[in-house]
Amino acid sequence: MSDTITNSDLYERVRNEVPSQLDVSNVQYEGPDLVIYTETPQEFAKDGDILGTLAHALRKRITIRPVTGTQSGPSEAEAVIHDVVPDKANIHNLEFHPTTGEVLIEAEKPGLVIGQRGRTIREITQKVGWNPEVVRTPPMESSTVDNVRNYLTQERAERRDFLEDVGEDIHAAPDKDVDWVRVTTLGCCREVGRASFILHTPNTKILVDCGDKPGAEGEVPYLHAPEAMPLPEIDAVVLTHAHLDHSALLPLLFKYGYSGPIYTTEPTRDLMGLLQLDYLDVASKEGRTPPYSSEQVRQAIKHTIPIEYGDVTDIAPDIKLTMHNAGHILGSATAHFHVGSGFHNVVFSGDVHYEPTRLFNGAVNDFPRAETMIMESTYGRKNDFQTDTEKSETRVRRIIRETYEQDGIVVIPAFAVGRSQELMLVLEEAMRLDEIPTMPIYLDGMIREATAIHTAYPEYLRDGLRQRILHEDENPFLAEQFQQVDGGQPMREEIASGDPCIILSTSGMVTGGPIMSWLELLGPESDNTLLFVGYQAEGTLGRRIESGRTEVTLEGQGGRADRLTLDCRIESVSGFSGHADRRGLEQYVEEMNPQPETILCVHGDDRATDELSSALYQKHNIRTHQPKNLETFRFS
Amino acid sequence: MSDTITNSDLYERVRNEVPSQLDVSNVQYEGPDLVIYTETPQEFAKDGDILGTLAHALRKRITIRPVTGTQSGPSEAEAVIHDVVPDKANIHNLEFHPTTGEVLIEAEKPGLVIGQRGRTIREITQKVGWNPEVVRTPPMESSTVDNVRNYLTQERAERRDFLEDVGEDIHAAPDKDVDWVRVTTLGCCREVGRASFILHTPNTKILVDCGDKPGAEGEVPYLHAPEAMPLPEIDAVVLTHAHLDHSALLPLLFKYGYSGPIYTTEPTRDLMGLLQLDYLDVASKEGRTPPYSSEQVRQAIKHTIPIEYGDVTDIAPDIKLTMHNAGHILGSATAHFHVGSGFHNVVFSGDVHYEPTRLFNGAVNDFPRAETMIMESTYGRKNDFQTDTEKSETRVRRIIRETYEQDGIVVIPAFAVGRSQELMLVLEEAMRLDEIPTMPIYLDGMIREATAIHTAYPEYLRDGLRQRILHEDENPFLAEQFQQVDGGQPMREEIASGDPCIILSTSGMVTGGPIMSWLELLGPESDNTLLFVGYQAEGTLGRRIESGRTEVTLEGQGGRADRLTLDCRIESVSGFSGHADRRGLEQYVEEMNPQPETILCVHGDDRATDELSSALYQKHNIRTHQPKNLETFRFS
Repeated sequence: MSDTITNSDLYERVRNEVPSQLDVSNVQYEGPDLVIYTETPQEFAKDGDILGTLAHALRKRITIRPVTGTQSGPSEAEAVIHDVVPDKANIHNLEFHPTTGEVLIEAEKPGLVIGQRGRTIREITQKVGWNPEVVRTPPMESSTVDNVRNYLTQERAERRDFLEDVGEDIHAAPDKDVDWVRVTTLGCCREVGRASFILHTPNTKILVDCGDKPGAEGEVPYLHAPEAMPLPEIDAVVLTHAHLDHSALLPLLFKYGYSGPIYTTEPTRDLMGLLQLDYLDVASKEGRTPPYSSEQVRQAIKHTIPIEYGDVTDIAPDIKLTMHNAGHILGSATAHFHVGSGFHNVVFSGDVHYEPTRLFNGAVNDFPRAETMIMESTYGRKNDFQTDTEKSETRVRRIIRETYEQDGIVVIPAFAVGRSQELMLVLEEAMRLDEIPTMPIYLDGMIREATAIHTAYPEYLRDGLRQRILHEDENPFLAEQFQQVDGGQPMREEIASGDPCIILSTSGMVTGGPIMSWLELLGPESDNTLLFVGYQAEGTLGRRIESGRTEVTLEGQGGRADRLTLDCRIESVSGFSGHADRRGLEQYVEEMNPQPETILCVHGDDRATDELSSALYQKHNIRTHQPKNLETFRFS
Repeated sequence: MSDTITNSDLYERVRNEVPSQLDVSNVQYEGPDLVIYTETPQEFAKDGDILGTLAHALRKRITIRPVTGTQSGPSEAEAVIHDVVPDKANIHNLEFHPTTGEVLIEAEKPGLVIGQRGRTIREITQKVGWNPEVVRTPPMESSTVDNVRNYLTQERAERRDFLEDVGEDIHAAPDKDVDWVRVTTLGCCREVGRASFILHTPNTKILVDCGDKPGAEGEVPYLHAPEAMPLPEIDAVVLTHAHLDHSALLPLLFKYGYSGPIYTTEPTRDLMGLLQLDYLDVASKEGRTPPYSSEQVRQAIKHTIPIEYGDVTDIAPDIKLTMHNAGHILGSATAHFHVGSGFHNVVFSGDVHYEPTRLFNGAVNDFPRAETMIMESTYGRKNDFQTDTEKSETRVRRIIRETYEQDGIVVIPAFAVGRSQELMLVLEEAMRLDEIPTMPIYLDGMIREATAIHTAYPEYLRDGLRQRILHEDENPFLAEQFQQVDGGQPMREEIASGDPCIILSTSGMVTGGPIMSWLELLGPESDNTLLFVGYQAEGTLGRRIESGRTEVTLEGQGGRADRLTLDCRIESVSGFSGHADRRGLEQYVEEMNPQPETILCVHGDDRATDELSSALYQKHNIRTHQPKNLETFRFS
């Protein structure tokens, strides 16, 4: 049977499923969702099961919208909402959108706005006719979250047109039989960086990730490969997570005429915006011409269609996408593509951490079907074993104590997103339990802002942590020793010449940003410690220092190069990576259900991808490949 | 140093290399060749070494053309030519082309027109100022060769414009550094048929072959793959040989807007025209709509730039092509691509026969460099050993004698091109040596015409055979027992009801053509023999009969299907294949110099490519792949 439905067919299908006493004025696709316009939104809200039954029958996510004119006036509605919702929810903001009949309710405790099994929200609709959309007021103020929300509010009308267009494309009949599925590697093969892949079928072309390569700014994804071109004809973009080696060049697509959707999780959307704007900032500070402007970052955000872990979402006539927790950073996902009607299933692992961490649950490796996997291999080498977390934490605490005892400062280069928050949790606990002396922990660069975004999406954090964040007095990120470096270079100089403290600063691979100042200020002194806690890619200054280089050259102000001799203690503690180590990668595959028939090992250097693919083949008898960039594999 | 030369640069370079007493009026690229226009063609002709020295210094093939007005008048020139050339050369035709200053001399013995080390030809130029182009009058009249030559004469002016355009493209500066080479499989993987590959670099896109799939007419090369599209932007087409599974769909490219060159050998150009026209004919007889018309076949011929075995030819700013004898059929070639300045070398084996046969020398497997090979695997299975030729010939003779003794007729389905001529040589010899009774050998379909083309290009045949053909009284193809079936169905019926004889008829895989009539006439009689001597592809009627099926259905006149029960003797003799057997393929690789680092096993069914690639990997430690269609491999 064909999946095609013209709009009148669609109307008939919906009408047939909806109880006859309920009005269906119109139906419309908006992106992957089905929107039902009704003159009786109250009736739809009465029965909590109607939407579920309907979603199941039509195999779509359903949104109900009141036909304009059937709702109470905003001021009347506002009063009712405040009446129905318990005060403890702490509503911060109400926004009425007459064109869609929606009311945005921002509250500190959105759970209380929604009510048990959606009871409160349904009561609101019944009483006022408006359809509530509930968002959380972040426990820490985040300018990123605010900006994104305000921007999307402002672009609401245009965005709705966009979603209708996307909806039409997704629900069109596929032109051709799906008799092949291909993956083209545009980057990220035998290297770490510039993650970018094309997944294509006879009908559809999907771009998965589009990152830069840290330490090699000229090496961008092969977007001019014929498999990717012309870029405006790409049907959809899927982003696994916000790190720049996966997201940096997404806005470039809009510069080149792409105007389709980006599917990713909501926190990834916000983090991506934060990191991309910083990417532009760093480029301009380093005197490079950024490849795109902030306008294209906004375009990317406007074209993002957020999806939640586990939601099966139509993104093309012949492709369904499901994103699953990947355990790597906030919002990070493994992308599962179901192609055709049971024809083939391709999983892009994205960056994964298989064991749970303080921040996140471990990566999901359980799928209905999965014949092919494109898998990260960052720590794929034979001996890439990280010390276990407990030992790593013990070592970090010891290094901090030792540096403190000799009156030194510990400076930790860290990704703004991911390891910083993990480390904040470690340090906060250690101080709380008196395992290290309590001292200031300075956050430099975007770490505080990134942390605020974490607290805005507690659903994406590990269970216990989520609970603690939702109770302000236990929110570990609000501990008073965390202080933002917001006074620029003078403040840094003051800190550097002051008492023992800990500094967390971006960038994580020492390729730019405030860490360069810290290196200059603290590197030459032997009582300080430079502590690496994350992966240092080839070509980065971090990797060079980690490999023993103590003479380094920094690009100073005005293009002048400063030579610097590092005399501080240099340490690496490996247990804090956001990546599974070799054991974790093997275990991830071993326990994967079902086991894939074919695995492409990517996102690792030459040796890592080689050794991992050999091991998976030999131990698990899985067909493995170690692709090069610019290759195309066919599965089917 | 850049390879670019603007025309004035080029002029300077040529001027510097040419002795100052010789005039250089203009220089121009025509396709891969460099043409020098001069007012003193006589002077250029005086010294046999000038051209060689110049070609070496400029690394180009050089053509000298007199500036218009410097030559004798045609009638005067004609007299001089007849005077200078010995009568034994038997000049059949002289054509003067004032626009290019060339005179086409067609003679029975072109060697005598050329003279020792080109002495005679230079004498002609010195005396008349025209530049002679010498071609052979085929010892057997060939309408194909005639038609192609006449057509090219007629299109001479347009063709010259085309060659100038191609020359500019070839000798432009490459836009980008060559830092990758890719091959995309558009067909011919895990199957025999629809050979078609894209070889691409950052600057250039080459299509190698574009064939159909015998027995599966709907399965054409994946020309709509993004790696191939848009077709008009393909820079050049290279054809390894004329068989339809490599050439059938080339004319389609011109229908889709391609207007660039096809590089192949001269005999392949003529055979390709013959086979493509027959392909159209068969399609229309079978009631299928042919995918293109004869006009596009002419386009393909007009756009062919013939190259000789061993000539290193620039075909793109970053690619040099050299074709080598592949031993498979007349003009068949292995295509060696030298990419970039020493960056990478890719060899497409084409279809190969490694041992010499009666017709051809064995395939060349000696190259300056060769990192990657795309290799045929027709007989790649573990047990695909053919009986040796001597035993095969003995068996054929025995089968013929036995059939003769029981008053039967032997009918042999054969490709018009290749095996038919091999068999003709076997049969002619056997009759001459009285090893089988002398009886008529009827040639049906295009076999006689294809044979005539063979005799037009004796340089492409094995040494001894070439000598015999050039002496009319020894030309084995002119033996009187060879008789053309030129009387249609009545003549076939008469032959079928007559005395013992041998019939060679197309098509070789019993997929159409006159062999269908012979099957109907001779198949039901137990005293006849159906003798297979070539590879029968999956899906063809030949394969079904060979595997024991005796109940067959023939499409009769007017769409009516005739059921037929075969009662004749059915035999297969394997030693006559134009393909190397498993031993030959292994030996070809084993003795290849240098050994390639990577081999892609294609042009064989699933088992053949699998078993050959495993064996080459295990025995020779070469990285091997068994590609699927629609995959892209990167080499570098």
